[in-house]
Amino acid sequence: MGWGLSIRLWRRAAAWGYRSGMHGLSRIPRPALEGFCAEVFARHGLEPEDARVAADVLVTADAMGLPSHGVGRMRRYVEGLRSGLMLPGAVEEIVAEGPSSILIDAHGAMGAPVSHRAMSAVLRKARLAGSAFGCVRDSNHFGIAGYYARMALAEDMIGIAMTNTAALGVPTNGTLAMFGTNPLAFAAPADAEGSFVLDMSTTVVTRGKIEVFERCRESLPRGWAVDGRGRPATDALATLRGLQDGAGGGILPLGGLGTAFGGHKGYGLAIMVDILCAVLAGAPFGSAIKDSATSSARVSHFFGAIRIASFRAPADFRRDMDGMLSSLRSCPPAEGEERVYYAGLPEREAEEESSRIGVAVSANSLASLMELGREIGVGPIL
Amino acid sequence: MGWGLSIRLWRRAAAWGYRSGMHGLSRIPRPALEGFCAEVFARHGLEPEDARVAADVLVTADAMGLPSHGVGRMRRYVEGLRSGLMLPGAVEEIVAEGPSSILIDAHGAMGAPVSHRAMSAVLRKARLAGSAFGCVRDSNHFGIAGYYARMALAEDMIGIAMTNTAALGVPTNGTLAMFGTNPLAFAAPADAEGSFVLDMSTTVVTRGKIEVFERCRESLPRGWAVDGRGRPATDALATLRGLQDGAGGGILPLGGLGTAFGGHKGYGLAIMVDILCAVLAGAPFGSAIKDSATSSARVSHFFGAIRIASFRAPADFRRDMDGMLSSLRSCPPAEGEERVYYAGLPEREAEEESSRIGVAVSANSLASLMELGREIGVGPIL
Repeated sequence: MGWGLSIRLWRRAAAWGYRSGMHGLSRIPRPALEGFCAEVFARHGLEPEDARVAADVLVTADAMGLPSHGVGRMRRYVEGLRSGLMLPGAVEEIVAEGPSSILIDAHGAMGAPVSHRAMSAVLRKARLAGSAFGCVRDSNHFGIAGYYARMALAEDMIGIAMTNTAALGVPTNGTLAMFGTNPLAFAAPADAEGSFVLDMSTTVVTRGKIEVFERCRESLPRGWAVDGRGRPATDALATLRGLQDGAGGGILPLGGLGTAFGGHKGYGLAIMVDILCAVLAGAPFGSAIKDSATSSARVSHFFGAIRIASFRAPADFRRDMDGMLSSLRSCPPAEGEERVYYAGLPEREAEEESSRIGVAVSANSLASLMELGREIGVGPIL
Repeated sequence: MGWGLSIRLWRRAAAWGYRSGMHGLSRIPRPALEGFCAEVFARHGLEPEDARVAADVLVTADAMGLPSHGVGRMRRYVEGLRSGLMLPGAVEEIVAEGPSSILIDAHGAMGAPVSHRAMSAVLRKARLAGSAFGCVRDSNHFGIAGYYARMALAEDMIGIAMTNTAALGVPTNGTLAMFGTNPLAFAAPADAEGSFVLDMSTTVVTRGKIEVFERCRESLPRGWAVDGRGRPATDALATLRGLQDGAGGGILPLGGLGTAFGGHKGYGLAIMVDILCAVLAGAPFGSAIKDSATSSARVSHFFGAIRIASFRAPADFRRDMDGMLSSLRSCPPAEGEERVYYAGLPEREAEEESSRIGVAVSANSLASLMELGREIGVGPIL
């Protein structure tokens, strides 16, 4: 998600020249980029299949036009592996398992491979049981939540994925960060329209957006953040500092300040995600989760799948999804707007473009990847 | 939900005197109020148990401080039964059923009784299967979604309930109402803190709030609605008219106008609810659902339950929930705010008060109930 604002903002950020790398986008064939990243992960101790999955999750984000969760994070991931914050040799433990449920303790492993295994187990179970859910605890940053929800599509299931994150969000009428940006993803298959894939943080924005405004020296829109006394905050730098040093304040839930625009709803959704990921898994939650330089450590994830065939023929479901999605896409746009989208459409269009002409990687990210490659003798990318 | 704004607004509305009935609130013992409403429903052809459930759903809303979904709706419900829009003698049909799933066609029955049966079936199945889901199609207004989600609490399960509604919501960057206020409810049990119960529409506000502003002749806050050209609308009357005559415009999704505050996220959530309720059930969705004077006809619902014991001991889950909820409640409040709540807390406090001193019913609602009673020889209430 994040179409519209993010695209305009990135263009503007590039125009401001805060990050020279944005001026040059390279297009790299997806297999080459994935192969390079997988090789880097493998050199840091990941099993080949885990390295492939970890690379695929990152490159998929870039291919979908979501560079905030793409290969630009390779350096942080690798530092996480080197510092031992992410343990390449961690042995996952299945803490509880039933015909429709699984709880895995990742014991500090990288987020993506264990999440892929958890969602695969959930899909396997849901095939027989009709629906299934899984939690992963003591994990690390797992990339885009939508990646795992989308795994359900090929099996004609509805897919669900969530994660908690370091506490950055302030409760409605509160002053302290007590929950994460806690994204939730939901995927349902269609035919001609492909699919509906919602992948959204439950805060009004993520920390990345606040950072972009800080770099551009722009004031935050009123309704994104509050200070340590719960007043609307427009100073991006002060907001980031308050989060870092625990002085208070932080990002508002979806719906913004107070209750007038439904801020209490976004707050409720964020807590719902924390309950499903962490309380259900017996894991830390809320302000107990802190960010480090290299990962969101000790986070928990939640995965789910519902088999469509339990309710109706999947082909009929997909046909009706096509009807719904094409009618949304055909809604006459507002003045000054070109198109009406639905969740997942901009990302699918970006992904199609990426497979035609290569995955867009900023010059900055590319330089960082090449440096990583030189350090351990992997590469070149092409 | 809706604490804060709604309370202030109702007080103000009362002060403006737009509805004289708001000046006098009667407190009526819950059993008496429920008994009266059940009797009225029974006289209109509902089986005694169905009449009891339908009354309980309405009175629970009043007891929780949510009069918009309470006994003030009795007249509309009764008119729906009299006009045949809701069919008291409808015979529900189980269209599909499996160990963890059920799809019921209500064939135009009242919403509450069939929803209660569907959620009961879901809970029964989830007890064995670990998780279960159910859809109800061709139904009518089912009251507060939270009622059904809360049914899971006593069984140490997580409860989920959703419904689609008549189309009032406009897609991000769009101009036409193409989805409902589509509420979703999520309930999880705690011990000392009772429970966490999120019950929220996925639009920024419901039509009821627009109507209150119209009666008060107040301008709508920017970010609640758009006109037929997709521009911010502040005229409450014109917004309501545009929805009624199909001229375009309508209510914005949670997150408001455009994408800057996450309006595309609320839009995605509303469509998610429509997919789970209607596409999964093979029922009408989006703009195919119209409101009538007496009900939201041909709506669909979605119910779910996840058994906590599949993951960990429910007592441990509830203990951690207490820790989470009490820490949220203890968050230092923002300047000018008295308390920080979590979802369901204001409603639980109101419900406790209602059982001590009776359920608050406005003089208007009371007069309407008494008139209903006179028409068919039921009553008095006390």
